[in-house]
Amino acid sequence: MKKPLILVTNDDGITAPGIRALVEVARQVGEVVVVAPDSPQSGMGHAITIADPIRLHKSKAFDDFNIESYECSGTPVDCVKLAKNVVFKDRHIDLCLSGVNHGSNASINIIYSGTLSAAMEASLEGIPSIGLSLLDYSYSANFESSKPYVQHLIAYILENGLEQGSLLNVNIPDLPGDQIKGMKVCRQADARWEEEFQESIDPRGQKYYWLTGHFVNNDSGEDTDIWALENGYISVVPSNHDLTNYRAMENLSPLEKLSTPQKENV
Amino acid sequence: MKKPLILVTNDDGITAPGIRALVEVARQVGEVVVVAPDSPQSGMGHAITIADPIRLHKSKAFDDFNIESYECSGTPVDCVKLAKNVVFKDRHIDLCLSGVNHGSNASINIIYSGTLSAAMEASLEGIPSIGLSLLDYSYSANFESSKPYVQHLIAYILENGLEQGSLLNVNIPDLPGDQIKGMKVCRQADARWEEEFQESIDPRGQKYYWLTGHFVNNDSGEDTDIWALENGYISVVPSNHDLTNYRAMENLSPLEKLSTPQKENV
Repeated sequence: MKKPLILVTNDDGITAPGIRALVEVARQVGEVVVVAPDSPQSGMGHAITIADPIRLHKSKAFDDFNIESYECSGTPVDCVKLAKNVVFKDRHIDLCLSGVNHGSNASINIIYSGTLSAAMEASLEGIPSIGLSLLDYSYSANFESSKPYVQHLIAYILENGLEQGSLLNVNIPDLPGDQIKGMKVCRQADARWEEEFQESIDPRGQKYYWLTGHFVNNDSGEDTDIWALENGYISVVPSNHDLTNYRAMENLSPLEKLSTPQKENV
Repeated sequence: MKKPLILVTNDDGITAPGIRALVEVARQVGEVVVVAPDSPQSGMGHAITIADPIRLHKSKAFDDFNIESYECSGTPVDCVKLAKNVVFKDRHIDLCLSGVNHGSNASINIIYSGTLSAAMEASLEGIPSIGLSLLDYSYSANFESSKPYVQHLIAYILENGLEQGSLLNVNIPDLPGDQIKGMKVCRQADARWEEEFQESIDPRGQKYYWLTGHFVNNDSGEDTDIWALENGYISVVPSNHDLTNYRAMENLSPLEKLSTPQKENV
Protein backbone atom coordinates (compact mmCIF):
# COMPACT_ATOMS: atom_id res chain seq x y z
CA MET A 1 0.00 0.00 0.00
CA LYS A 2 1.20 3.49 -0.86
CA LYS A 3 2.29 5.49 2.17
CA PRO A 4 0.33 8.71 2.78
CA LEU A 5 2.14 11.93 1.81
CA ILE A 6 2.62 14.26 4.78
CA LEU A 7 3.73 17.91 4.64
CA VAL A 8 5.42 19.08 7.84
CA THR A 9 5.96 22.76 8.63
CA ASN A 10 6.22 25.04 11.69
CA ASP A 11 6.84 28.63 12.77
CA ASP A 12 9.91 28.20 15.00
CA GLY A 13 12.10 27.50 11.95
CA ILE A 14 13.41 24.36 10.29
CA THR A 15 16.14 23.75 12.90
CA ALA A 16 13.84 23.83 15.96
CA PRO A 17 13.68 20.64 18.08
CA GLY A 18 9.87 20.68 17.91
CA ILE A 19 9.67 20.11 14.15
CA ARG A 20 12.29 17.36 14.45
CA ALA A 21 10.16 15.58 17.06
CA LEU A 22 7.13 15.87 14.76
CA VAL A 23 9.05 14.48 11.79
CA GLU A 24 10.24 11.56 13.94
CA VAL A 25 6.62 10.61 14.58
CA ALA A 26 5.27 11.39 11.10
CA ARG A 27 7.87 9.24 9.33
CA GLN A 28 6.49 6.19 11.17
CA VAL A 29 3.17 6.58 9.34
CA GLY A 30 3.88 8.24 6.01
CA GLU A 31 6.20 9.75 3.46
CA VAL A 32 7.30 13.09 4.88
CA VAL A 33 8.39 16.27 3.10
CA VAL A 34 9.37 19.34 5.17
CA VAL A 35 8.87 22.94 3.99
CA ALA A 36 9.59 25.30 6.89
CA PRO A 37 10.78 28.86 7.54
CA ASP A 38 14.54 29.49 7.50
CA SER A 39 14.21 31.61 10.67
CA PRO A 40 11.80 31.87 13.63
CA GLN A 41 8.39 33.27 12.66
CA SER A 42 6.48 33.20 15.93
CA GLY A 43 3.60 35.63 16.21
CA MET A 44 3.33 36.01 12.44
CA GLY A 45 -0.34 35.02 12.47
CA HIS A 46 -1.75 34.58 9.00
CA ALA A 47 0.77 36.97 7.43
CA ILE A 48 1.71 36.42 3.78
CA THR A 49 4.53 37.95 1.76
CA ILE A 50 3.07 40.00 -1.07
CA ALA A 51 5.38 42.98 -1.51
CA ASP A 52 8.65 40.98 -1.62
CA PRO A 53 10.10 37.98 -3.41
CA ILE A 54 10.32 34.69 -1.46
CA ARG A 55 13.31 32.34 -1.49
CA LEU A 56 13.02 28.56 -1.32
CA HIS A 57 16.12 26.39 -0.92
CA LYS A 58 16.76 22.69 -0.45
CA SER A 59 17.83 22.03 3.11
CA LYS A 60 20.01 19.34 4.67
CA ALA A 61 18.17 19.55 8.01
CA PHE A 62 16.59 16.09 7.67
CA ASP A 63 19.19 14.32 5.55
CA ASP A 64 19.90 11.98 8.47
CA PHE A 65 16.32 10.67 8.14
CA ASN A 66 16.61 10.62 4.35
CA ILE A 67 13.75 13.12 4.23
CA GLU A 68 13.41 15.82 1.55
CA SER A 69 13.29 19.27 3.11
CA TYR A 70 13.15 22.91 2.03
CA GLU A 71 13.71 26.15 3.87
CA CYS A 72 11.75 29.23 2.91
CA SER A 73 12.41 32.92 3.58
CA GLY A 74 8.71 33.63 4.02
CA THR A 75 6.08 33.20 6.71
CA PRO A 76 4.57 29.85 7.76
CA VAL A 77 1.58 30.52 5.49
CA ASP A 78 3.96 31.22 2.59
CA CYS A 79 5.59 27.83 3.30
CA VAL A 80 2.30 25.99 2.84
CA LYS A 81 1.44 27.89 -0.33
CA LEU A 82 4.90 27.19 -1.80
CA ALA A 83 4.75 23.55 -0.73
CA LYS A 84 1.45 22.99 -2.49
CA ASN A 85 2.18 25.01 -5.62
CA VAL A 86 5.91 24.62 -6.18
CA VAL A 87 7.32 21.67 -4.19
CA PHE A 88 4.43 19.20 -4.57
CA LYS A 89 2.94 20.65 -7.75
CA ASP A 90 0.19 18.21 -8.65
CA ARG A 91 0.88 15.55 -6.02
CA HIS A 92 -1.96 14.93 -3.59
CA ILE A 93 -1.03 15.85 0.00
CA ASP A 94 -2.81 13.60 2.50
CA LEU A 95 -2.04 15.54 5.66
CA CYS A 96 -0.34 18.72 6.86
CA LEU A 97 1.27 18.82 10.30
CA SER A 98 2.48 22.12 11.75
CA GLY A 99 4.66 22.30 14.86
CA VAL A 100 5.37 21.01 17.36
CA ASN A 101 5.38 24.59 18.58
CA HIS A 102 7.52 25.51 21.58
CA GLY A 103 4.78 27.04 23.73
CA SER A 104 0.98 27.11 23.99
CA ASN A 105 -1.35 27.94 21.13
CA ALA A 106 -4.48 27.23 23.12
CA SER A 107 -7.46 29.58 23.20
CA ILE A 108 -7.00 32.99 21.53
CA ASN A 109 -3.36 32.21 20.68
CA ILE A 110 -4.68 30.51 17.54
CA ILE A 111 -5.10 33.90 15.87
CA TYR A 112 -1.55 35.12 16.62
CA SER A 113 0.16 31.81 15.90
CA GLY A 114 2.17 31.13 12.76
CA THR A 115 1.96 27.41 13.57
CA LEU A 116 -1.82 27.39 13.50
CA SER A 117 -2.07 29.78 10.57
CA ALA A 118 0.03 27.36 8.51
CA ALA A 119 -2.37 24.57 9.46
CA MET A 120 -5.35 26.75 8.58
CA GLU A 121 -3.85 27.64 5.22
CA ALA A 122 -3.48 23.91 4.47
CA SER A 123 -7.11 23.36 5.45
CA LEU A 124 -8.12 26.12 3.02
CA GLU A 125 -6.24 24.23 0.31
CA GLY A 126 -8.39 21.18 1.12
CA ILE A 127 -5.65 19.35 3.05
CA PRO A 128 -6.64 17.81 6.42
CA SER A 129 -4.34 19.50 8.87
CA ILE A 130 -3.21 19.57 12.49
CA GLY A 131 -1.34 22.27 14.40
CA LEU A 132 0.50 20.96 17.46
CA SER A 133 2.00 22.81 20.42
CA LEU A 134 3.67 21.81 23.67
CA LEU A 135 3.20 23.96 26.78
CA ASP A 136 6.92 24.60 27.20
CA TYR A 137 8.42 27.69 25.59
CA SER A 138 12.05 26.62 26.08
CA TYR A 139 14.26 25.55 23.18
CA SER A 140 15.10 22.37 25.11
CA ALA A 141 11.43 21.39 25.61
CA ASN A 142 10.88 17.65 26.00
CA PHE A 143 8.60 16.28 23.28
CA GLU A 144 9.05 12.60 24.18
CA SER A 145 6.00 12.00 26.35
CA SER A 146 3.61 13.35 23.72
CA LYS A 147 4.92 11.23 20.84
CA PRO A 148 2.67 8.16 21.29
CA TYR A 149 -0.43 10.40 21.42
CA VAL A 150 0.63 12.35 18.37
CA GLN A 151 1.17 9.12 16.44
CA HIS A 152 -2.30 7.88 17.46
CA LEU A 153 -3.86 11.17 16.41
CA ILE A 154 -2.15 11.23 13.01
CA ALA A 155 -3.21 7.63 12.31
CA TYR A 156 -6.80 8.44 13.33
CA ILE A 157 -7.06 11.50 11.04
CA LEU A 158 -5.42 9.69 8.12
CA GLU A 159 -7.99 6.92 8.50
CA ASN A 160 -11.08 8.98 9.26
CA GLY A 161 -10.35 12.31 7.58
CA LEU A 162 -11.46 15.72 8.75
CA GLU A 163 -14.42 17.85 7.70
CA GLN A 164 -13.49 19.90 4.58
CA GLY A 165 -12.00 23.23 5.64
CA SER A 166 -11.48 22.09 9.22
CA LEU A 167 -8.21 21.83 11.14
CA LEU A 168 -7.28 20.63 14.62
CA ASN A 169 -5.63 22.86 17.19
CA VAL A 170 -3.81 20.40 19.47
CA ASN A 171 -2.05 21.50 22.66
CA ILE A 172 -0.05 19.16 24.87
CA PRO A 173 0.50 19.68 28.61
CA ASP A 174 4.12 19.70 29.75
CA LEU A 175 3.85 16.52 31.82
CA PRO A 176 5.59 13.14 32.00
CA GLY A 177 3.87 10.59 29.76
CA ASP A 178 2.26 8.67 32.60
CA GLN A 179 0.59 11.83 33.90
CA ILE A 180 -1.11 12.69 30.58
CA LYS A 181 -4.71 11.54 30.96
CA GLY A 182 -5.57 11.31 27.25
CA MET A 183 -7.11 13.61 24.63
CA LYS A 184 -10.14 15.91 25.11
CA VAL A 185 -12.12 17.33 22.19
CA CYS A 186 -13.02 20.83 23.32
CA ARG A 187 -13.84 24.40 22.34
CA GLN A 188 -11.52 27.41 22.24
CA ALA A 189 -11.57 29.08 25.68
CA ASP A 190 -12.65 32.73 25.66
CA ALA A 191 -9.38 34.03 27.11
CA ARG A 192 -7.07 36.86 26.04
CA TRP A 193 -3.74 38.58 26.56
CA GLU A 194 -3.40 41.64 28.74
CA GLU A 195 -0.54 43.56 27.27
CA GLU A 196 2.04 45.69 28.85
CA PHE A 197 4.76 47.50 26.92
CA GLN A 198 8.22 47.76 28.33
CA GLU A 199 9.39 51.28 27.53
CA SER A 200 13.11 51.87 27.19
CA ILE A 201 15.79 54.02 25.52
CA ASP A 202 18.15 52.67 22.84
CA PRO A 203 21.91 53.44 22.67
CA ARG A 204 21.16 56.35 20.34
CA GLY A 205 18.83 57.94 22.89
CA GLN A 206 15.61 57.00 21.07
CA LYS A 207 12.57 55.62 22.90
CA TYR A 208 11.26 52.16 22.04
CA TYR A 209 8.55 49.78 23.22
CA TRP A 210 8.74 46.02 23.63
CA LEU A 211 5.59 43.92 23.80
CA THR A 212 5.02 41.80 26.88
CA GLY A 213 1.92 40.66 28.72
CA HIS A 214 0.11 37.95 30.58
CA PHE A 215 -2.62 35.53 29.65
CA VAL A 216 -6.01 36.00 31.32
CA ASN A 217 -8.71 33.31 31.28
CA ASN A 218 -12.15 34.42 32.42
CA ASP A 219 -13.84 31.41 30.84
CA SER A 220 -14.85 29.00 33.60
CA GLY A 221 -16.26 26.35 31.24
CA GLU A 222 -15.08 22.76 31.71
CA ASP A 223 -15.44 22.14 27.97
CA THR A 224 -12.54 24.42 26.97
CA ASP A 225 -8.98 23.75 25.86
CA ILE A 226 -7.58 25.65 28.84
CA TRP A 227 -9.57 23.49 31.27
CA ALA A 228 -8.40 20.30 29.52
CA LEU A 229 -4.75 21.36 29.68
CA GLU A 230 -4.98 22.41 33.33
CA ASN A 231 -6.43 18.99 34.09
CA GLY A 232 -3.75 16.91 32.40
CA TYR A 233 -5.39 16.32 29.02
CA ILE A 234 -4.16 16.97 25.50
CA SER A 235 -6.65 19.49 24.07
CA VAL A 236 -8.05 18.98 20.55
CA VAL A 237 -10.07 21.91 19.20
CA PRO A 238 -11.63 21.45 15.74
CA SER A 239 -11.29 24.89 14.16
CA ASN A 240 -12.23 26.60 10.93
CA HIS A 241 -11.90 29.81 8.95
CA ASP A 242 -15.50 31.04 9.09
CA LEU A 243 -15.36 34.01 11.45
CA THR A 244 -19.01 35.00 10.98
CA ASN A 245 -20.77 35.71 14.27
CA TYR A 246 -24.13 34.25 13.21
CA ARG A 247 -25.68 35.09 16.57
CA ALA A 248 -25.03 38.80 16.07
CA MET A 249 -26.67 39.02 12.64
CA GLU A 250 -30.24 39.54 13.72
CA ASN A 251 -29.46 42.47 16.03
CA LEU A 252 -27.88 44.30 13.12
CA SER A 253 -30.79 44.01 10.72
CA PRO A 254 -31.93 47.63 11.36
CA LEU A 255 -28.79 48.65 9.44
CA GLU A 256 -30.45 47.36 6.28
CA LYS A 257 -33.41 49.64 6.83
CA LEU A 258 -31.50 52.91 6.91
CA SER A 259 -32.95 55.17 4.25
CA THR A 260 -30.47 56.17 1.57
CA PRO A 261 -28.21 58.70 3.28
CA GLN A 262 -28.16 62.26 2.04
CA LYS A 263 -24.81 63.02 0.52
CA GLU A 264 -24.89 66.66 1.53
CA ASN A 265 -24.73 65.67 5.21
CA VAL A 266 -21.02 64.81 4.96
CA MET B 1 -22.49 65.99 25.76
CA LYS B 2 -19.00 64.50 25.62
CA LYS B 3 -17.97 63.40 22.14
CA PRO B 4 -17.18 59.68 21.76
CA LEU B 5 -13.49 58.82 21.55
CA ILE B 6 -12.62 57.05 18.27
CA LEU B 7 -9.35 55.27 17.47
CA VAL B 8 -8.59 55.14 13.74
CA THR B 9 -5.99 52.80 12.25
CA ASN B 10 -5.34 50.91 9.00
CA ASP B 11 -2.85 48.64 7.24
CA ASP B 12 -1.99 50.73 4.17
CA GLY B 13 -0.02 53.19 6.31
CA ILE B 14 -0.77 56.57 7.86
CA THR B 15 -0.42 58.50 4.59
CA ALA B 16 -2.88 56.39 2.55
CA PRO B 17 -5.93 58.22 1.15
CA GLY B 18 -8.25 55.57 2.64
CA ILE B 19 -7.45 56.42 6.26
CA ARG B 20 -7.81 60.12 5.48
CA ALA B 21 -11.29 59.49 4.08
CA LEU B 22 -12.19 57.54 7.23
CA VAL B 23 -10.90 60.31 9.51
CA GLU B 24 -12.92 62.87 7.53
CA VAL B 25 -16.08 60.94 8.37
CA ALA B 26 -15.18 59.97 11.94
CA ARG B 27 -14.39 63.56 12.98
CA GLN B 28 -18.03 64.48 12.23
CA VAL B 29 -19.20 62.20 15.02
CA GLY B 30 -16.42 61.98 17.58
CA GLU B 31 -13.01 62.93 18.91
CA VAL B 32 -10.52 61.10 16.71
CA VAL B 33 -7.00 59.88 17.49
CA VAL B 34 -5.00 58.09 14.78
CA VAL B 35 -2.40 55.38 15.49
CA ALA B 36 -1.33 53.77 12.21
CA PRO B 37 1.65 51.99 10.65
CA ASP B 38 4.46 54.15 9.27
CA SER B 39 4.59 51.95 6.14
CA PRO B 40 2.22 49.66 4.20
CA GLN B 41 1.37 46.44 6.11
CA SER B 42 -1.03 44.68 3.76
CA GLY B 43 -1.26 40.92 4.16
CA MET B 44 0.16 41.02 7.68
CA GLY B 45 -2.84 39.16 9.10
CA HIS B 46 -2.80 39.04 12.88
CA ALA B 47 1.00 39.34 13.07
CA ILE B 48 2.48 40.92 16.19
CA THR B 49 6.03 42.11 16.83
CA ILE B 50 7.52 40.08 19.66
CA ALA B 51 11.20 39.65 18.79
CA ASP B 52 11.92 43.32 18.05
CA PRO B 53 11.39 46.72 19.64
CA ILE B 54 8.59 48.90 18.26
CA ARG B 55 8.83 52.64 17.59
CA LEU B 56 5.98 55.07 18.10
CA HIS B 57 6.29 58.69 16.97
CA LYS B 58 3.96 61.68 16.85
CA SER B 59 2.93 62.35 13.28
CA LYS B 60 1.87 65.53 11.49
CA ALA B 61 -0.31 63.62 9.03
CA PHE B 62 -3.58 65.01 10.40
CA ASP B 63 -2.42 68.38 11.73
CA ASP B 64 -4.63 70.08 9.12
CA PHE B 65 -7.67 68.58 10.91
CA ASN B 66 -6.18 69.38 14.30
CA ILE B 67 -6.22 65.63 15.04
CA GLU B 68 -3.61 63.91 17.23
CA SER B 69 -1.86 61.15 15.30
CA TYR B 70 0.97 58.65 15.81
CA GLU B 71 2.92 56.48 13.41
CA CYS B 72 4.15 53.09 14.52
CA SER B 73 6.87 50.83 13.12
CA GLY B 74 4.88 47.68 13.91
CA THR B 75 1.97 45.79 12.42
CA PRO B 76 -1.68 46.95 12.47
CA VAL B 77 -2.29 44.75 15.54
CA ASP B 78 0.72 46.33 17.26
CA CYS B 79 -0.84 49.76 16.55
CA VAL B 80 -4.03 48.83 18.39
CA LYS B 81 -2.12 47.37 21.35
CA LEU B 82 0.08 50.47 21.59
CA ALA B 83 -2.91 52.78 21.20
CA LYS B 84 -4.76 51.16 24.09
CA ASN B 85 -1.79 50.70 26.40
CA VAL B 86 0.50 53.65 25.65
CA VAL B 87 -1.37 56.41 23.77
CA PHE B 88 -4.76 56.22 25.52
CA LYS B 89 -3.57 54.61 28.76
CA ASP B 90 -6.68 54.58 30.93
CA ARG B 91 -8.99 56.57 28.66
CA HIS B 92 -12.07 54.65 27.51
CA ILE B 93 -12.12 54.13 23.74
CA ASP B 94 -15.69 54.11 22.40
CA LEU B 95 -14.99 52.80 18.90
CA CYS B 96 -12.14 51.56 16.73
CA LEU B 97 -12.27 52.09 12.96
CA SER B 98 -9.74 50.38 10.70
CA GLY B 99 -9.35 51.31 7.03
CA VAL B 100 -10.66 52.32 4.66
CA ASN B 101 -8.61 49.62 2.98
CA HIS B 102 -7.68 50.00 -0.67
CA GLY B 103 -9.10 46.67 -1.90
CA SER B 104 -11.55 43.96 -0.83
CA ASN B 105 -11.42 42.20 2.53
CA ALA B 106 -14.59 40.22 1.89
CA SER B 107 -14.87 36.49 2.53
CA ILE B 108 -11.64 34.65 3.40
CA ASN B 109 -9.59 37.85 3.01
CA ILE B 110 -10.49 38.61 6.63
CA ILE B 111 -7.80 36.18 7.81
CA TYR B 112 -5.00 37.68 5.67
CA SER B 113 -5.96 41.29 6.22
CA GLY B 114 -4.05 43.62 8.52
CA THR B 115 -7.04 45.99 8.41
CA LEU B 116 -9.43 43.41 9.80
CA SER B 117 -6.89 41.98 12.25
CA ALA B 118 -6.50 45.45 13.77
CA ALA B 119 -10.28 45.62 14.15
CA MET B 120 -10.35 42.15 15.69
CA GLU B 121 -7.61 43.08 18.13
CA ALA B 122 -9.67 46.06 19.25
CA SER B 123 -12.69 43.80 19.71
CA LEU B 124 -10.55 41.52 21.90
CA GLU B 125 -9.73 44.56 24.02
CA GLY B 126 -13.48 45.11 24.48
CA ILE B 127 -13.69 48.00 22.01
CA PRO B 128 -16.57 47.91 19.48
CA SER B 129 -14.82 47.94 16.15
CA ILE B 130 -15.35 48.12 12.40
CA GLY B 131 -12.97 47.22 9.59
CA LEU B 132 -13.78 48.97 6.31
CA SER B 133 -12.62 48.26 2.76
CA LEU B 134 -13.40 49.63 -0.67
CA LEU B 135 -13.31 47.31 -3.70
CA ASP B 136 -10.68 49.38 -5.50
CA TYR B 137 -7.02 48.48 -5.01
CA SER B 138 -5.66 51.68 -6.55
CA TYR B 139 -3.98 54.41 -4.51
CA SER B 140 -6.32 56.95 -6.11
CA ALA B 141 -9.48 55.03 -5.13
CA ASN B 142 -12.55 57.22 -4.73
CA PHE B 143 -13.98 57.02 -1.22
CA GLU B 144 -16.56 59.79 -1.65
CA SER B 145 -19.66 57.76 -2.49
CA SER B 146 -19.31 55.55 0.58
CA LYS B 147 -18.93 58.37 3.10
CA PRO B 148 -22.63 58.93 3.91
CA TYR B 149 -23.08 55.20 4.56
CA VAL B 150 -19.99 55.01 6.72
CA GLN B 151 -21.21 57.94 8.79
CA HIS B 152 -24.62 56.27 9.27
CA LEU B 153 -22.95 53.03 10.28
CA ILE B 154 -20.63 54.67 12.80
CA ALA B 155 -23.52 56.57 14.38
CA TYR B 156 -25.59 53.36 14.58
CA ILE B 157 -22.84 51.38 16.32
CA LEU B 158 -22.02 54.23 18.71
CA GLU B 159 -25.69 54.36 19.68
CA ASN B 160 -26.47 50.62 19.78
CA GLY B 161 -23.11 49.05 20.56
CA LEU B 162 -21.87 45.68 19.35
CA GLU B 163 -21.90 42.29 21.07
CA GLN B 164 -18.79 41.97 23.29
CA GLY B 165 -15.90 40.50 21.29
CA SER B 166 -17.64 41.12 17.97
CA LEU B 167 -16.45 43.27 15.08
CA LEU B 168 -17.93 44.24 11.72
CA ASN B 169 -16.24 43.43 8.42
CA VAL B 170 -17.60 46.08 6.05
CA ASN B 171 -16.86 46.04 2.33
CA ILE B 172 -18.00 48.74 -0.06
CA PRO B 173 -18.61 48.20 -3.80
CA ASP B 174 -16.72 50.52 -6.12
CA LEU B 175 -19.82 52.27 -7.45
CA PRO B 176 -21.13 55.82 -7.76
CA GLY B 177 -23.19 56.77 -4.68
CA ASP B 178 -26.55 56.60 -6.46
CA GLN B 179 -25.87 53.00 -7.53
CA ILE B 180 -25.16 51.72 -4.01
CA LYS B 181 -28.37 49.99 -2.90
CA GLY B 182 -27.75 50.10 0.86
CA MET B 183 -26.22 47.81 3.48
CA LYS B 184 -26.71 44.03 3.76
CA VAL B 185 -25.94 42.08 6.92
CA CYS B 186 -24.47 38.81 5.68
CA ARG B 187 -22.18 35.87 6.34
CA GLN B 188 -18.60 35.38 5.16
CA ALA B 189 -18.68 33.62 1.75
CA ASP B 190 -16.84 30.32 1.62
CA ALA B 191 -14.38 31.43 -1.06
CA ARG B 192 -10.60 31.20 -1.31
CA TRP B 193 -7.49 32.21 -3.23
CA GLU B 194 -5.94 29.97 -5.83
CA GLU B 195 -2.28 30.79 -5.79
CA GLU B 196 0.26 30.84 -8.49
CA PHE B 197 3.87 31.75 -7.92
CA GLN B 198 5.76 33.76 -10.48
CA GLU B 199 9.21 32.19 -10.66
CA SER B 200 12.08 34.39 -11.75
CA ILE B 201 15.84 34.99 -11.48
CA ASP B 202 17.31 37.98 -9.64
CA PRO B 203 20.27 40.09 -10.93
CA ARG B 204 22.65 37.88 -8.94
CA GLY B 205 21.39 34.74 -10.69
CA GLN B 206 19.34 33.44 -7.74
CA LYS B 207 15.87 32.03 -8.15
CA TYR B 208 12.94 33.69 -6.39
CA TYR B 209 9.17 33.33 -6.17
CA TRP B 210 6.54 36.03 -6.05
CA LEU B 211 3.05 35.32 -4.80
CA THR B 212 0.14 35.95 -7.12
CA GLY B 213 -3.25 34.31 -7.56
CA HIS B 214 -6.92 34.72 -8.22
CA PHE B 215 -9.99 34.67 -6.03
CA VAL B 216 -12.39 31.75 -6.45
CA ASN B 217 -15.93 31.78 -5.07
CA ASN B 218 -17.75 28.45 -5.07
CA ASP B 219 -20.33 29.65 -2.56
CA SER B 220 -23.61 30.21 -4.39
CA GLY B 221 -25.49 31.48 -1.32
CA GLU B 222 -27.40 34.74 -1.63
CA ASP B 223 -26.72 35.52 2.03
CA THR B 224 -22.97 36.06 1.59
CA ASP B 225 -20.79 39.16 1.47
CA ILE B 226 -19.65 38.33 -2.07
CA TRP B 227 -23.26 38.14 -3.28
CA ALA B 228 -24.10 41.44 -1.59
CA LEU B 229 -21.14 43.21 -3.19
CA GLU B 230 -21.86 41.78 -6.64
CA ASN B 231 -25.40 43.06 -6.32
CA GLY B 232 -24.56 46.63 -5.39
CA TYR B 233 -24.80 46.43 -1.59
CA ILE B 234 -22.32 47.34 1.13
CA SER B 235 -21.65 44.04 2.94
CA VAL B 236 -21.65 43.98 6.75
CA VAL B 237 -20.41 40.71 8.27
CA PRO B 238 -20.49 40.49 12.08
CA SER B 239 -17.36 38.52 12.92
CA ASN B 240 -15.60 37.15 15.98
CA HIS B 241 -12.50 35.41 17.22
CA ASP B 242 -13.95 32.02 18.19
CA LEU B 243 -12.64 29.68 15.50
CA THR B 244 -14.10 26.52 17.07
CA ASN B 245 -15.88 24.32 14.55
CA TYR B 246 -18.63 23.17 16.93
CA ARG B 247 -20.24 21.00 14.25
CA ALA B 248 -17.08 18.90 13.93
CA MET B 249 -16.73 18.13 17.65
CA GLU B 250 -19.01 15.11 17.82
CA ASN B 251 -17.30 13.25 14.98
CA LEU B 252 -14.01 13.49 16.84
CA SER B 253 -15.20 12.04 20.13
CA PRO B 254 -13.63 8.60 19.39
CA LEU B 255 -10.26 10.34 19.90
CA GLU B 256 -11.10 10.58 23.61
CA LYS B 257 -11.58 6.84 23.81
CA LEU B 258 -8.13 5.83 22.60
CA SER B 259 -6.57 3.65 25.24
CA THR B 260 -3.34 5.05 26.68
CA PRO B 261 -0.78 4.56 23.93
CA GLN B 262 2.16 2.28 24.56
CA LYS B 263 5.34 4.32 24.63
CA GLU B 264 7.44 1.53 23.15
CA ASN B 265 5.50 1.78 19.87
CA VAL B 266 7.34 4.95 18.87
